Formats: sequence, C-alpha cells, structure tokens
Amino acid sequence: MPTPQQPSLIVRQKSPPNIEFPFASLSDWLIPTEQFFVRNHFPSPDIDARDWRLRVGGAVERPIELDLDSIKAMRSTTLSAVVECAGNGRVYYEPPKEGLQWQNGAVGNAAWTGVLLREILEMAGVKPTACEVLLAGADSGVVDTNKKTASPGPIAFARSLPLEKAIADSTILAYSMNEAPLTRDHGYPLRAVVGGWFGMAWVKWITDITVVEQPFLGYWQARDYFRWERNLGEPRLVPLAEMEVKAQIARPVQGAQLIAGQPYRIFGAAWSGEAPIRQVQVCTGDGRGWREGRLLETERPFAWRLWEYMWTPEEVGRYTLRCRAVDGAGSVQPELQRSDCESYAANWIIPVEVTVVPEPQTYQEEFVI
Amino acid sequence: MPTPQQPSLIVRQKSPPNIEFPFASLSDWLIPTEQFFVRNHFPSPDIDARDWRLRVGGAVERPIELDLDSIKAMRSTTLSAVVECAGNGRVYYEPPKEGLQWQNGAVGNAAWTGVLLREILEMAGVKPTACEVLLAGADSGVVDTNKKTASPGPIAFARSLPLEKAIADSTILAYSMNEAPLTRDHGYPLRAVVGGWFGMAWVKWITDITVVEQPFLGYWQARDYFRWERNLGEPRLVPLAEMEVKAQIARPVQGAQLIAGQPYRIFGAAWSGEAPIRQVQVCTGDGRGWREGRLLETERPFAWRLWEYMWTPEEVGRYTLRCRAVDGAGSVQPELQRSDCESYAANWIIPVEVTVVPEPQTYQEEFVI
Repeated sequence: MPTPQQPSLIVRQKSPPNIEFPFASLSDWLIPTEQFFVRNHFPSPDIDARDWRLRVGGAVERPIELDLDSIKAMRSTTLSAVVECAGNGRVYYEPPKEGLQWQNGAVGNAAWTGVLLREILEMAGVKPTACEVLLAGADSGVVDTNKKTASPGPIAFARSLPLEKAIADSTILAYSMNEAPLTRDHGYPLRAVVGGWFGMAWVKWITDITVVEQPFLGYWQARDYFRWERNLGEPRLVPLAEMEVKAQIARPVQGAQLIAGQPYRIFGAAWSGEAPIRQVQVCTGDGRGWREGRLLETERPFAWRLWEYMWTPEEVGRYTLRCRAVDGAGSVQPELQRSDCESYAANWIIPVEVTVVPEPQTYQEEFVI
Repeated sequence: MPTPQQPSLIVRQKSPPNIEFPFASLSDWLIPTEQFFVRNHFPSPDIDARDWRLRVGGAVERPIELDLDSIKAMRSTTLSAVVECAGNGRVYYEPPKEGLQWQNGAVGNAAWTGVLLREILEMAGVKPTACEVLLAGADSGVVDTNKKTASPGPIAFARSLPLEKAIADSTILAYSMNEAPLTRDHGYPLRAVVGGWFGMAWVKWITDITVVEQPFLGYWQARDYFRWERNLGEPRLVPLAEMEVKAQIARPVQGAQLIAGQPYRIFGAAWSGEAPIRQVQVCTGDGRGWREGRLLETERPFAWRLWEYMWTPEEVGRYTLRCRAVDGAGSVQPELQRSDCESYAANWIIPVEVTVVPEPQTYQEEFVI
C-alpha cells in the first residue's frame, strides 16, 4: 500500500509493463521484489514450468535440454547484485531522446539464486572455437513497425555475452529473487544475472543458450543497446556491456526545504561495473567543494553501496547538491553528458536543488499575534 | 535541355543534392555524367586538388601521403561498371519505409578510370594482421539529430571493405568518369569504384584509407546500409555489400498505350553483384508465361546489360508486363518483397501495366463524319 513514506511505483508504460522504483523512497540495501523496477520489451510470457525446457546448443560437444527440476538439483549460488537499465536517467538527456523517460529508479539491488552459467556450459562441452554465448528469451514481438529502427518481423529478446563473461563467477542463471521463485515480470522460471553489466544482458525467461563462433550482431546489440566509440577518427558501434560508475541522491529530493542549523542526512546509492565503489563525494554548493561521503555496510562484489553524508547548512538560501562516485578502477563519474552513448549510460552528475529556510522560532509566532 | 524524349532529372532532395536519372529515358549503355544519379549524404565538399592529399595509414608498414599528380602518374585502369544506390526502388516498399523515395533511376553505368586500390595498399605495405580497409570521405555532418538513428555528433561518410575485396581487380580509386575528371557531385578529386557492390561502398572525395584489424562497425554499416540475416533463429546485422540480381523495364512506362498487331520493343537494363547476367526473361501477361529476352552488346564484368524483347500484342486489353533476371551464380530475381532488407535492396519484380488499343483505321474516321 503506498504511503507518503512509501510512494507507489511509477508506471512508465502499462503494456508491456515498464515500471520504475521511486528512488526517493530508497531505504534498504535490498529492494523488495514487489518494488523492483520492471523493464520488458514484450508482454511477459506466461510459462508453465512443467512444459518449459532450457536448450543448450550451437558450438558444443553435446547439445542438451534441461527441465527446471534438474537445474534446481545442481549446486546453487547466490549473488547479491545491482542491475541498472541502460536507459536509466534518459530523462536527463538534453535535447530529449526517444525512448522510455526513466528518471533514476530503473535500478535495484537484489539477492539472486541459481546456477553458474559456466556449469551449464560445461555439461554441454563448449568447443574451442567458441566466441560468445547467446541467450534468448521466450518473449518476442515486432519492434518499431515502419520506423527506420523496425525489427525484421517478429524477434525474440536475445543478447550475447563474450565467452569470458559467460563463464565468470558473476554470471548465473537465476530461478530465485530475494529468496522466492522469480515472479512472472522478473523472468520466471529462469533469467540471467550478469554481475556488473547493464540490465539488457540480464535476459529473462531464457529458453535457448547458443554458443556461437562469431560475435553476434543481433537486433538488441546492433540496433539497440549499443554506444559509439571513436577511434581511427570515425565512431564505431560497440554493444553496451558494463555499467558505468554512478552515485545517485535519493534524499533530499529536488525542491526540498531543509532547515538552517539542523543536521540533514544526504542519502543515496552508488554502483559501477566490474569494479567496486571506492568513494562517494558530495558537494553541497556551500563553497567548501567536494567532501567525502560515508559508505554504508560492507563491500560486496557486484552489489551497490548505500552511502550518506551529514550536512548542517548554516545559512539560509538556495543550494545545489551534487554527488559523484569513484570506483576501484579509478573511474570518476563525469560532470557532463557525453555524445557517444546514444540515449544510454546517463551517468553524469545530476544536481539536486534545495532551499535552506530559517529554523522556526516559537516565540516569534507568539509575538506576531 | 530536357525534351519529351529526354526528360529532366528527378530531384529527390535539393540540399544535399540527391538526384535520380529518369529511367524511362534509358538509351545508351553508358549514362552521360550530367544525367548520372547523385546520392550524397552531406553537401559536396569543394576541394582544391592542390591542397588535397590521400593519407594511407593504420595497420601498414609505411604510412604514406599522396597528391593527385602522383596518383595520376601511376598505372591507370579503366572499368565500365554499374553502380546502384542500395535504396533504389525504395518507393515500391509496402508499407512505405522512411528514406529518400527512389523509384528506379538511382542506378547507372559509366566508365571509371583510376588506379587499383591494391597498388596503393602495396605502396604502404599491408600488415598480415589486416582485416578490412576503411575508406573515409571529406564530406561530413550530423545525421538525424534527436532521432533514435542520430549520429554521435558530426561524422564523415566512411565505409570499410573486406581486405579480399579491397585488393580485387574490381576495386579502383577513380579520378575520371566517362573520360573526364570527376565532377564535384561525383566525388572530385578521387572516389572509390567497387565493382558489383551497392553505391554506399563507392566512397567519394576520399581523403583517408585506414587498414584495420577488426571488422569496422561504423555508422554507415551498422546504423545504416545493413540488412538482417536469420540464422540460429534470431536475425543478425550484416553490412550491405554486393548488389542483387535485378532487371528493370525502361519502356513501356506504366500506363502506356500500345497498339494491337504492332510490334513493340520492351527495353531495359539488368545487373547483379559479382556474377554476370545470364538471362532476362519477360512475361507479358498474355498467357504465354516467361519468354527469353535478348541481351544486347557483349558481356563486360561489373557493367550492366541492356536487353530487349519484341512483343506484338494481338488482342486489345490490359496487360501486366514483368521482367526478371538470372545471374551466372544462379540467382533469380524474387517475386516478392523480403522482410530482412531494411529499406534496401528492393530487387523484387515490379510489374508495368499497359493497355493495348486497336490500330487506328483511317477509313473509320472518314466514315464517322
């Protein structure tokens, strides 16, 4: 039930469901499943686990087919990991860009349980010529009919991972989210969890794993979910992969009123790609520059870090609050929007403007009457 | 000067110039330069040949820089070759597709003189790790601002060729078209001629040749000028390359009136990719099925073939004329539009509808009065 402390979810698109977590209500390190953002391209398939099979084929020694019980009978792994939609923050692009206008809640941290993709691949025996592993979901449809970005007829949602990432400890096929079976909107019965990578790699409702011997330039990594990299003078297409270093302020919200002389807890979350968060810095616009925020809880690989910064504004007035994260690889959140990211990976610093007002004084109120 | 026999060019876009040859006026095997179609993405650069240089770099032993005189001093090659814009025939797509609405005149055959790209590459010494050769023009700009297909800021027109095609006898850097220096709209002072390939590979105003060690997924082969190929169940992006087998009827035109009992010369051109044209067949819709057209002149690799079919319609009525080409690789022009070609490579059979009317009889006219 939504309350003032717990605003309801933000529906960006009703059908297929695309739902944003109200980031201002962030409180826990794990986001409950019923509040977790949903990003679906096609209607969520309604799968009966008794009929569902996972097929593994392509450049393998022994194509296999597994049912859900056999997968659950394998050694299980739990990974607490953050997933951010590559389009999170798109609303901040200037000029505006086409696509769902995500603010900052297309991100969440959850506990995922399943099996290592590596162990499934080992059962099938990956050939030495393998290059990538293609994951395809049971969801499909037609994209952008008649637009220049139209799909060639109906297509499934499908993404490939380089073999190196597919066999990493951070890539699992999960059947459980926050200690319960996956819900339909989150990919029941099986989805990919690709620690450190944007959400488009976290394929839901997986039915087919195909080992391929050439980089797979499918619709979802060549027509969508890519960026440009300039080298040799001209930009070239690179499928999106790792998330980028980013801290977001959950509270105060834009336009909030704080009280002079009273300590306020600036609070948010920070994450990056393969590297852990090292620092979150805060600038309150009071002339004292960037200062160190405090990282909460312990570091866990591929999960986000909550952080806080206690601020006592001394003077009334308008302030611009900013935060920025630094990761273990030395990447620093950029100041400004970049031109090479299509409408994705919006990780530049988003200022939050607040007003500091005088402390209410009871005797003054009495005096007025 | 346009005349009824020689209609003026069809302007599809004024700036940058995109101009179609009126295919109904086809008469000669070579299309004169002033009638040749123009397909430019950006304004034609105004280049002073004294300042212009061709730079060759990347994965080469010795980066070089050449001026126009040095290139003209090399051994010259002349290739008569057809070039078709990949978007030729786009107007026939159903439902309509975005892009310039080319009918059937974004194609032409000319005599191109220049040097083999292979000989330029040999001067620089291609490293054994080379994979493709990237050709970049002096034309540049911003594409589709704010649309989902926007370029990442200003880009040049640039395309890569696989090394195998770059060193083929059919790939030249031309400084002359139809025995005169290139005109500004056709790429002065130097353009690529890539026999058998669609026009997007025929880069104009070339300034930079870069040998690369990975397939180059630039804007013009990943965001534009590609098609989808389905394998492994899901479509994957493939940059456009070879032209596809195609015959077009120049005359009669749609809606023409022919006269019963009088022979009519159905006339057109046919071309394909790397393979020569073997047959053109014609169906006049008079119930006698596909019959053999006559190929004119001799076969020359990479040039088009003009063809004719003499038809004497016996009965008055409405007829649907169709032609189809077969090439030396056995490819036959398809009956129907395909779904995997984006808005390109429209080579399916386009019917031409005509009416056959009675032969005028002078005595009847006298009788009426």
